Amino acid sequence: MLAKKHPPVANLPSARWLALAEALRPALSRNDRWPVRLVEPVADPSAFQGWRLKEVAAAEALPARTIGRGEQVIVDFGEHLVGYLRLELAYVGIAMDAPLRLKLVFGEVPAEVCEPFDPFDGTLSRAWLQDELVTLDELSRPLTLPRRYAFRYLRIAVVATSVNYRVRIAALACERVTSAARPPQPLPPGLPPDLVAIDEAGLRTLANCMQTVFEDGPKRDRRLWSGDLRLQALTNYVSFADTALVKRCLYLLAGLARADGCVPACVYEFPTPSMGIDFILDYTALFPAIVLDYARASGDLDTARDLWPVARRQLEIALAHLDDEGLFVDPKTWWLFIDWADGLDKQAAVHGVLAYAAERTLALARLLERDADVAHLPALAPRMKSAARARLFDAGSGLFVSGAQRQVSWASQTWMVLAGIMTPAEGAAAFRALPALPDAVTPGGPYLWHHVIEAMLICGLKDESLARVRSYWGAMIARGATTFWEVFDPADERRSPYRSHHLNSYCHAWSCTPAYFIRRGAFAGIIGPGSTPADGRKPMAH
Amino acid sequence: MLAKKHPPVANLPSARWLALAEALRPALSRNDRWPVRLVEPVADPSAFQGWRLKEVAAAEALPARTIGRGEQVIVDFGEHLVGYLRLELAYVGIAMDAPLRLKLVFGEVPAEVCEPFDPFDGTLSRAWLQDELVTLDELSRPLTLPRRYAFRYLRIAVVATSVNYRVRIAALACERVTSAARPPQPLPPGLPPDLVAIDEAGLRTLANCMQTVFEDGPKRDRRLWSGDLRLQALTNYVSFADTALVKRCLYLLAGLARADGCVPACVYEFPTPSMGIDFILDYTALFPAIVLDYARASGDLDTARDLWPVARRQLEIALAHLDDEGLFVDPKTWWLFIDWADGLDKQAAVHGVLAYAAERTLALARLLERDADVAHLPALAPRMKSAARARLFDAGSGLFVSGAQRQVSWASQTWMVLAGIMTPAEGAAAFRALPALPDAVTPGGPYLWHHVIEAMLICGLKDESLARVRSYWGAMIARGATTFWEVFDPADERRSPYRSHHLNSYCHAWSCTPAYFIRRGAFAGIIGPGSTPADGRKPMAH
Repeated sequence: MLAKKHPPVANLPSARWLALAEALRPALSRNDRWPVRLVEPVADPSAFQGWRLKEVAAAEALPARTIGRGEQVIVDFGEHLVGYLRLELAYVGIAMDAPLRLKLVFGEVPAEVCEPFDPFDGTLSRAWLQDELVTLDELSRPLTLPRRYAFRYLRIAVVATSVNYRVRIAALACERVTSAARPPQPLPPGLPPDLVAIDEAGLRTLANCMQTVFEDGPKRDRRLWSGDLRLQALTNYVSFADTALVKRCLYLLAGLARADGCVPACVYEFPTPSMGIDFILDYTALFPAIVLDYARASGDLDTARDLWPVARRQLEIALAHLDDEGLFVDPKTWWLFIDWADGLDKQAAVHGVLAYAAERTLALARLLERDADVAHLPALAPRMKSAARARLFDAGSGLFVSGAQRQVSWASQTWMVLAGIMTPAEGAAAFRALPALPDAVTPGGPYLWHHVIEAMLICGLKDESLARVRSYWGAMIARGATTFWEVFDPADERRSPYRSHHLNSYCHAWSCTPAYFIRRGAFAGIIGPGSTPADGRKPMAH
Repeated sequence: MLAKKHPPVANLPSARWLALAEALRPALSRNDRWPVRLVEPVADPSAFQGWRLKEVAAAEALPARTIGRGEQVIVDFGEHLVGYLRLELAYVGIAMDAPLRLKLVFGEVPAEVCEPFDPFDGTLSRAWLQDELVTLDELSRPLTLPRRYAFRYLRIAVVATSVNYRVRIAALACERVTSAARPPQPLPPGLPPDLVAIDEAGLRTLANCMQTVFEDGPKRDRRLWSGDLRLQALTNYVSFADTALVKRCLYLLAGLARADGCVPACVYEFPTPSMGIDFILDYTALFPAIVLDYARASGDLDTARDLWPVARRQLEIALAHLDDEGLFVDPKTWWLFIDWADGLDKQAAVHGVLAYAAERTLALARLLERDADVAHLPALAPRMKSAARARLFDAGSGLFVSGAQRQVSWASQTWMVLAGIMTPAEGAAAFRALPALPDAVTPGGPYLWHHVIEAMLICGLKDESLARVRSYWGAMIARGATTFWEVFDPADERRSPYRSHHLNSYCHAWSCTPAYFIRRGAFAGIIGPGSTPADGRKPMAH
């Protein structure tokens, strides 16, 4: 923990900021969604995580069915939803002479409704898994479950009845909730269908995470994380354009800063706004970038100026971990995130993050005419660049290395490009070389893949970046996704940072950004009428 | 089913009767009760069903405890309660960064909170067993569980948290509900302490069953059964004296009679009043007796006259099963209850019930000046008596026998005495002989024991009947009961008609009647100051 290293900063107007955040709490739009089909599990090694859900009937068949003790139905709502489940149940038989007990299991992906959750060996709480045991003494009123769920599939198992009745599901609906109420901005015309589908899943991911804050995942953790917020906000600006929700989240994070001014990596909204327990150095450093993006997208420089003291403080806290030459050295007291990849050495990537963050903070200062506050920054960039190039660049391979073991990774090259420490030409060569290097640590999830795409675009690798979007996020679509996932390793579909693929979030904020790239025109010229979507190559005419 | 045997009786004013019942729906009184101690299970072969709950702390210790994943507490509320559970929970730790999942298990008796309910092999619904899995996303508000429970013990197990917090139960209360709001009439003075305790448990049993109807058991079946109502009403008249609730229940039963006029053995109150699926011949026959008891206790002859058509109809339906000589012959199309004893032949007992019911109906007719409606009844009694004595009395043993196997049972003697077919002297001899007859079928539960006590009193066996009250109901008290049980076999504490002692109801209406006997003065002269409670013998002075 960093708390003891920095002096308390008492001058942040936390209470005022939290009051501003509260005033910006959005109303949720609420709309009913209904099942589209009844399905049953088929074990299928070729299907995602080994399970296929085969349609057995249209959803209209549901009210005509009766379900007895030990039986179940699985319904498919056709798309990932976040909301409240409403059931109308009836009994069929001579009398409902005993209570009814149902087990309800909500699944974002098929495995959740096809596999038992127990015994459970995950490293996070079992309570994140969305199952409920519901006992009903009578069936006279529609049942609305009190908790919110994130799901596409719902397994309803009848655990107990008497011998005298069976159960009929007369009606079933999900009241979908989101604060992304307005329609998204239109897509550029002529987009190939696969990218339309990727954009749609990206925006659904974003919308389902847009509640009264930008949540990271509506199944888990259901919290505002600054790292997710940065990517959500970018995608939001080019789609739902809800700058007020970003403003609310910035004030929540800022208002819940620690005594030393450090903004937590995440905050809790309920029961009352409070600081999360996690502090992530790269997230801290990138906070000013979120403010800059917000200021540019909204034009609301007043808010950015209001937040400037906390923004610059984040960079200050992060830069405290540079050594005398300006190189980042892991203090071992912080969580460094960067990516979920196993065994990733994060020194080089975090160095890149810090340099990138310094550049963003300087840009923010200039936009806000606060240059004087960061007069030391213009000289810092070349120092950090020199230090990195002297101590982390391997001239032989043309790649940046990280840590004592001089590890090569996609993460390191990516952040060195984003920081401007690696030139676009060097970066292009690196990204072309990396796939052939068996020891190079590959990205472990969408958060890093987002930054890889961004870095490739800087390096002019427009075709390659589009191909990566198609091969990575498109592979989720091919596996049935209607929202993008927190974790996705095409080579290990059950990979989980939490020792349980059931715990993974399958609608996760940081995975929504293909929509951002598509909508900001990152692939302009290589997609559209006449382009060749199958492999993403430039159309002949260009 | 009897439906086809009797012509429909269209002239019962069912809708008016149900409207009267609805108008009589009582308000429930609501009062909080709190735990008195924290306990833990001790396997103890000498304790009821093998489990003793050892006090480990006073209840005041609860808010100071924290409970982690995999841990539990068991609280003892000190007495059987029916009501709604309210919990105030807090987390202790650095953050509640995942939902909390609790398992709550409610027990009327220790075994329910000491043994797992699953795997479940009972013959009734598993959903009767009172356990809940509750998942809470936040702990900001007190949690009131929506269902009503019947319990003394509550096991709270923490199924899931994150590693970052433990749970604290800041407050815990049961909002007890009953319609027995007014204080019971005072006990006769000078009652020995053991009978005071028996009376108290009887009245608690009755009060906990007195909700918006007289329920049979607040855990299970939570329904109005006419057989239970008869005994509840008798005890109620000498304690809470709530004649309005009896009136409501009579109108509910009458208003829900089948098309042929037959009153069901039980009715459902929720979601709307409806006929139960069970028809029990002895319960049907005894309906007029409930009306008679009501008329005498309340003086409300108008209601009794209003119900007279349905009362006389019950007897008519029941008497249809007498043969030409006036002897009951089992039609095999009805459920005959009498008692839960295994292998009991019910012919003789039901014959006694029918004769008793005919006598009660005649008494009701006379009270209501409706003698003309039952002009055939005065001649029936001697016919039924002659038939029984000719075909079911074994002169050698002086006992009534039942069925083709000429089975001897307590049930047969009991109902022959109550019917006046067996003389008090014969009955007294029989009750003195029965304990020494190894093949005589003994009572299987409190419902028959009630009638045994009543019959013994008719036979002048006041000491013996008091001794039976003490040895049977007193044995429940000795085993920790604060309410009396549906089923109790001192020789087999886990005996259950449902293949699961967990399914048995441990607060059951038909078991409340020791309070009736005590309060109506059945034991006057042999109890009170100077009496010898240990063996129930008459005090020397009398």
